[in-house]
Amino acid sequence: MLKLYHFWSSTCSRKVRLTLAEKEIDWVSHHIDIVSKLENLEPNYVKINPNGVVPALEHDGKIIIESNVIIEYLDDVFPENSLRPKNSYQRALMRLWLDLAETKIHKNINIISYNKRHVPRANQLFSKEEQLSNIERFPGIEKRAVMLKRFKNGVSNDDEKLATDCLIEAMDQMERTLVNSEWLAGTDFSLADIAIAPFIERFEANGIETLVDWGKRPKTGNWWKRVQGRPSFIEAYSFQDPNK
Amino acid sequence: MLKLYHFWSSTCSRKVRLTLAEKEIDWVSHHIDIVSKLENLEPNYVKINPNGVVPALEHDGKIIIESNVIIEYLDDVFPENSLRPKNSYQRALMRLWLDLAETKIHKNINIISYNKRHVPRANQLFSKEEQLSNIERFPGIEKRAVMLKRFKNGVSNDDEKLATDCLIEAMDQMERTLVNSEWLAGTDFSLADIAIAPFIERFEANGIETLVDWGKRPKTGNWWKRVQGRPSFIEAYSFQDPNK
Repeated sequence: MLKLYHFWSSTCSRKVRLTLAEKEIDWVSHHIDIVSKLENLEPNYVKINPNGVVPALEHDGKIIIESNVIIEYLDDVFPENSLRPKNSYQRALMRLWLDLAETKIHKNINIISYNKRHVPRANQLFSKEEQLSNIERFPGIEKRAVMLKRFKNGVSNDDEKLATDCLIEAMDQMERTLVNSEWLAGTDFSLADIAIAPFIERFEANGIETLVDWGKRPKTGNWWKRVQGRPSFIEAYSFQDPNK
Repeated sequence: MLKLYHFWSSTCSRKVRLTLAEKEIDWVSHHIDIVSKLENLEPNYVKINPNGVVPALEHDGKIIIESNVIIEYLDDVFPENSLRPKNSYQRALMRLWLDLAETKIHKNINIISYNKRHVPRANQLFSKEEQLSNIERFPGIEKRAVMLKRFKNGVSNDDEKLATDCLIEAMDQMERTLVNSEWLAGTDFSLADIAIAPFIERFEANGIETLVDWGKRPKTGNWWKRVQGRPSFIEAYSFQDPNK
């Protein structure tokens, strides 16, 4: 049995739901409210995912964490509707995109979203004292330190500008890749496309014009249209907030 | 033909040399001096690795970058002397260690090494003006920004302490794992062990007592002894500075 611990609008949860939908695998949903109830910080959940983040996958009693690791695991265990190139070189390219999605794109979109979305949302839900004690509940020294620094000092304009420039760099790399290749890791749709797609949706939702002006990056615009047209995308995104 | 662009004492180069040695694959060395000659920033090398770092692997005319991606590629292409668990769950555990090696260990040992090793070495080789213009030659907006910030402000005691605490956390996780498991990703030596080992050598070389007190972490101490006893370790570390 496959159980997914996830949050409806988390990008990394969407990566896993996209993979499950592409592979047409049945799964059981365990929704973890990471925004208002902070169920990700409950001791029971931290036992499942020691990092206190979503998603986590439970498969026959075993727990797998980290979205990139989960999606490769799913393709390992359920080889049908393969999502990894057969060619080893293209498989390496795929893993470079998986890495870029987390270490560059996820990291920097988080910085940009902080002032715009995270702060107003947190202020609506919690007092400043509560926000501080929520941060202290996070497992992981580095995570706590980053959150505390942002809470105390905010994200500066310079940091926001740097994060945007990093994302522009990533989007330019994407455009250059898609000039010569139908999908990010070669001729077939793969985990590389899945790892990147939910972030493009975030760029659009945040209205970051400089990243989603498809006139400037037509190949990426075309790729994005093709991704959104896939049944898996529609299915993965149809999962909405069960508490509403 | 396999050609490795690498630097003799770089941890990530060592990861790849360990993998090549374990698999008993012949390769051609192209040493890139990243310290005094900054050959990694020469236009010819940046064409090979757009990030301007070592290692890079050339295999039959194709270039593969990023040490974690390179070592999985090698195990993909040369399946003999397999270095990835057959079991999918253990393979997922292996990938978690690969990720941790870069996003947590590599990142934080770099912070700690800055004042102790990087600054004195740079001051010996280059004037302050030269150091600044070297930083500006680095491809990658984020890399340049991080290097520039360190160059201007140094690494604070607080940042050094935080980095050390993150590494302690990683070492504790390692010890907990090795209580129940002979190797990091299960019963067999794997890429997980290869990805971590060169950093342990760095902890010892930097004399970071709190990380290498094997009385406190006996399972890790025993693991480290077993790793160093492997012929691959001796071979990978026998590659010394060819300019000396």
